[in-house]
Amino acid sequence: MIRVGILGGTGYTALEAIKLLLRHPHAQITAATSRQEGRPHIATVHPQLTKRVDVHLEDLSTAALADRCDCVFSCLPHAASAESIAPLLEAGVRVIDFSADYRLDDGPTYKKWYEHEHPDPTRLGKTVYGLPELFKTHICAAKLVANPGCYPTSAILPLAPLLKEGWIDEDDIIVDSKSGVSGAGRTPKLNTHYPECNESISAYSVGKHRHQPEIEQILGRASGRSVQVVFTPHLTPMDRGILTVCYTRPQEELSEDQVLQLLSSFYADAPFVRVVKHLPATKDVAHTNFCDITARIVRGRLLLISAIDNLIKGASGAAVQNFNLMFGFPETMAL
Amino acid sequence: MIRVGILGGTGYTALEAIKLLLRHPHAQITAATSRQEGRPHIATVHPQLTKRVDVHLEDLSTAALADRCDCVFSCLPHAASAESIAPLLEAGVRVIDFSADYRLDDGPTYKKWYEHEHPDPTRLGKTVYGLPELFKTHICAAKLVANPGCYPTSAILPLAPLLKEGWIDEDDIIVDSKSGVSGAGRTPKLNTHYPECNESISAYSVGKHRHQPEIEQILGRASGRSVQVVFTPHLTPMDRGILTVCYTRPQEELSEDQVLQLLSSFYADAPFVRVVKHLPATKDVAHTNFCDITARIVRGRLLLISAIDNLIKGASGAAVQNFNLMFGFPETMAL
Amino acid sequence: MIRVGILGGTGYTALEAIKLLLRHPHAQITAATSRQEGRPHIATVHPQLTKRVDVHLEDLSTAALADRCDCVFSCLPHAASAESIAPLLEAGVRVIDFSADYRLDDGPTYKKWYEHEHPDPTRLGKTVYGLPELFKTHICAAKLVANPGCYPTSAILPLAPLLKEGWIDEDDIIVDSKSGVSGAGRTPKLNTHYPECNESISAYSVGKHRHQPEIEQILGRASGRSVQVVFTPHLTPMDRGILTVCYTRPQEELSEDQVLQLLSSFYADAPFVRVVKHLPATKDVAHTNFCDITARIVRGRLLLISAIDNLIKGASGAAVQNFNLMFGFPETMAL
Amino acid sequence: MIRVGILGGTGYTALEAIKLLLRHPHAQITAATSRQEGRPHIATVHPQLTKRVDVHLEDLSTAALADRCDCVFSCLPHAASAESIAPLLEAGVRVIDFSADYRLDDGPTYKKWYEHEHPDPTRLGKTVYGLPELFKTHICAAKLVANPGCYPTSAILPLAPLLKEGWIDEDDIIVDSKSGVSGAGRTPKLNTHYPECNESISAYSVGKHRHQPEIEQILGRASGRSVQVVFTPHLTPMDRGILTVCYTRPQEELSEDQVLQLLSSFYADAPFVRVVKHLPATKDVAHTNFCDITARIVRGRLLLISAIDNLIKGASGAAVQNFNLMFGFPETMAL
Repeated sequence: MIRVGILGGTGYTALEAIKLLLRHPHAQITAATSRQEGRPHIATVHPQLTKRVDVHLEDLSTAALADRCDCVFSCLPHAASAESIAPLLEAGVRVIDFSADYRLDDGPTYKKWYEHEHPDPTRLGKTVYGLPELFKTHICAAKLVANPGCYPTSAILPLAPLLKEGWIDEDDIIVDSKSGVSGAGRTPKLNTHYPECNESISAYSVGKHRHQPEIEQILGRASGRSVQVVFTPHLTPMDRGILTVCYTRPQEELSEDQVLQLLSSFYADAPFVRVVKHLPATKDVAHTNFCDITARIVRGRLLLISAIDNLIKGASGAAVQNFNLMFGFPETMAL
Repeated sequence: MIRVGILGGTGYTALEAIKLLLRHPHAQITAATSRQEGRPHIATVHPQLTKRVDVHLEDLSTAALADRCDCVFSCLPHAASAESIAPLLEAGVRVIDFSADYRLDDGPTYKKWYEHEHPDPTRLGKTVYGLPELFKTHICAAKLVANPGCYPTSAILPLAPLLKEGWIDEDDIIVDSKSGVSGAGRTPKLNTHYPECNESISAYSVGKHRHQPEIEQILGRASGRSVQVVFTPHLTPMDRGILTVCYTRPQEELSEDQVLQLLSSFYADAPFVRVVKHLPATKDVAHTNFCDITARIVRGRLLLISAIDNLIKGASGAAVQNFNLMFGFPETMAL
Repeated sequence: MIRVGILGGTGYTALEAIKLLLRHPHAQITAATSRQEGRPHIATVHPQLTKRVDVHLEDLSTAALADRCDCVFSCLPHAASAESIAPLLEAGVRVIDFSADYRLDDGPTYKKWYEHEHPDPTRLGKTVYGLPELFKTHICAAKLVANPGCYPTSAILPLAPLLKEGWIDEDDIIVDSKSGVSGAGRTPKLNTHYPECNESISAYSVGKHRHQPEIEQILGRASGRSVQVVFTPHLTPMDRGILTVCYTRPQEELSEDQVLQLLSSFYADAPFVRVVKHLPATKDVAHTNFCDITARIVRGRLLLISAIDNLIKGASGAAVQNFNLMFGFPETMAL
Repeated sequence: MIRVGILGGTGYTALEAIKLLLRHPHAQITAATSRQEGRPHIATVHPQLTKRVDVHLEDLSTAALADRCDCVFSCLPHAASAESIAPLLEAGVRVIDFSADYRLDDGPTYKKWYEHEHPDPTRLGKTVYGLPELFKTHICAAKLVANPGCYPTSAILPLAPLLKEGWIDEDDIIVDSKSGVSGAGRTPKLNTHYPECNESISAYSVGKHRHQPEIEQILGRASGRSVQVVFTPHLTPMDRGILTVCYTRPQEELSEDQVLQLLSSFYADAPFVRVVKHLPATKDVAHTNFCDITARIVRGRLLLISAIDNLIKGASGAAVQNFNLMFGFPETMAL
């Protein structure tokens, strides 16, 4: 039985991770942290967990965590996450980091987009990016895994095979993504206040979203090419789900069948990628770890369309998938 | 042209009031207040108003308001509202108060439910309750009108005629109401954070909601009887609308037709009450000042079912209706 | 391995049942029926099931079903369900019926509410009602189980213990329920067309809903008393979930603690009933088999408030729970 | 007083047109047609209209319509619309056609996309396209106006000025649009059944939507250039609203300010176009006739982002705007 701790237990990704781990025959949740006072039962914060788990939210030291946990899922915000993780790694705890802290290759890019010095820069560029469909071998051996961002997962999975084969122009890629509101986290803000975002869709952070450099760097790492994308995220009136349309330009003429076949063979061993002929809806993958992908040719352009659940394949499901690989369990266990 | 000021211009009821007043041929918005710094254009807070009105949010003194306005709509929270209103009344400005400050009859009840001393207790019990369908004559002559609460409007309109006639037991009334989320105001909180309340319905403040004494006192005032209600509000995943089911016990056997006829004749001159045979949906009245009412007899009980838009008939539409009566315009103008 | 067939595989309860059974270590789906032509893969109707199950929709005879299945989940509409089930029972197949066909005690009541002769009247009044929290012993031995209606589950679970103890008046019960739209099934109709029911709440079938006699008969069966309820269902703009408020009148003065204690001890061995102090939201139980219940005393009335997922505890989860009991598996398996 | 008839009175665009016309001081609704039997009051189909208008749905001949109406709004489906309109025009009635029948330039394109022969081909290419911001002079004099499609309005308004000036490449335009569900009409279908499309977003008709040739032809007409677009519509879980992001490639380097200035001056006299600096949300324009537009430069691309209400600026509001121009009223009357 692997003993798992959750850092930052009050948010949505923590909740989803806990619900998945409760189904896992070889994982046991032995700690959950938060700065809330009084060691409250986790069900006071997440009523869904009532009677399902006996875990309290505690403010725990590195030593206490290292004593209680073989593995930690860090659901802390960026910067805070790296600060907590570094000493845990020294103490021999294996870590899956939900934050963006270890996803990028280098400190300057991190500083440019996250606007502060990285707290643990020596691990940048050496940390495994936890997208098992692309980096499985590295994940199996990793002590620390950078769990991917939700938008990047939805964009990288359809684009990587095409870029690797050199079938599309790496400088002419538009990624237009629509996300449910849970992607914005659990802290109440005006733009996620129900009467503001319900019955409304809008683009946000156009050209400025922190997932843009992540998409570019990881696509570069996966394909060996320098990639540029225009990335437009949208806030969509639904709880969960991301639909991404990637507009690309083929290097030579392509048919939809060719593209679907490339994707199918590329992901032949990936249990959570489903290459489909129909246009996927986010509801098809809601509450699952699947990523559905299809392709369309329109006026000479190649459109790649993907759907994921931002909280599962885009966060906690991917984390459990990484956990399975790191600890030698079947990749699909509990998923 | 009546010059109107809006106190507390950043919330939803202020926004709806402004949109209605923009259609009013005899009203002009001459001031809007807020504690925001820098005199921002109101469209920076309400993008809907871009290019539609040239009003800035200002922190104005009583004197400045009295100078610029013939009438003030106060969209301030309770307590703050009475504090601002009292001096404006002294200065001769007529006031429609959206807060609960002047709705109740007496200080002790106010203190019990609102948990502080009333700032202007002498006007309690003497202020007109702005439900034109019941108190039109008084409204026409009023300097100050207490604009009704949204839930009370939805409950009082169907119940008052039956109580007045003595057709139902005044001690056996259950009011089960379902409201859209805008009723909770514009300040972001966890329970109105989109991923919390979307795709979910829950009862709240059961037996403790401040609209319970308001419903009881006004029904008492309208019917001359002492009335007791059990009131259960629900938060419903939609922007706007209140559906209320009142479960009552007839004093003698009644038919649906009898009840519909009583309601129809009671509201024969009320342009915004529609007595209907079908079961009303909140969408039927969304963005309008109507209150749709029907009746059903089930196992000897009389059910009265009503639907309003909480922001219009439940707030800003009622205010404009009161404004029309106070200043001698046709009751339906701009509505 | 128990071989399970699904009758009527195209609706929402079939989909949810299949998803639950896919997690069940001792169940295998060996057939799914539909009148669709051409033996389509079930994923063409339910894209969520892509790559998850290898089942085709077929138009199968009783003999073929009996050959392939140890147990059948019938998701057919009423009447059609009993017609298919009767011969399967003769052939030795055990059946869980999602329709209302075997829930009521007698033919005349069935005919009055369902407006046709019952196709298999001899089993009426002798069939186990599949609410394990009340009828577990009978379910374990049953060949045929009438899976409960969604609204009845939400009303019976909170009311039964109080009625059994004689703590509340059996003639003064109001059941006010709010359901998500999936409760209306998968056939497109105007009232469930998105722009009609979105952003709107309405009561429907007031005093005429078929679940009213079901609630009354089962409460009578469970408590040994003749029970009358006023039942008001509402269509609520969300996919799934039922929130029910039962307004009852205590026979003697009761405290909330007393009631919560009675409920807790009554359901001490029920793994899916959670007696809670807070007001439950349907989101707390979404996608789970839980029923959350609380109590409030308001002006001498006792309010019992419950929340379930209409598709899980209100249908497919209850069916799997019944399946577990019928075949000797742990009650919570796959749930 | 202009007497207006509504052809096809049961859909959403008819309802919105009627609600707008009820506010119009110089329009009177004198007829509404439908094939429904029995001359039902329009409020039986649209409960929102209860007590607001005294119009019955009738199956009227051309002669009867010509007798009763000076102007007709045709909300009929394509083909049926042209068939009804042609004889009305002969009879001297002025017509605003909500269908696509008269929007395209030529019969072959119409046949290719609408899959049947055009019933009135001689008017193709000669009919005014009712986008007042581009074709006001022609609309004022027109007997027949082709009211624009909702998606085309959202795409043409931001793109036309840039194309006219030659600032962007006319062959490298991607139009990614997200629409509320009312855009799919009022006929219940599986994909617009609430539990199917709620909490889900998906692209549909990719590369095959009939608004693609309309966008291209009208942009060509407005700019004098042959234009090609890739058009991707999405079904978004909300009642109304379209958000469109146009990805374009500047011919020379452009700044956001330059583009906003061009748009502002181009639309200086257009009362319903609001060029804004912030990223617009569909809620900003809901229930209004506004089109909000902004621009962003990302990695050398120019993004034009627009928001409209598909039922108002995308249909019925535009129709009333056209009506005002055709009959010499102020463009903004009743809007």
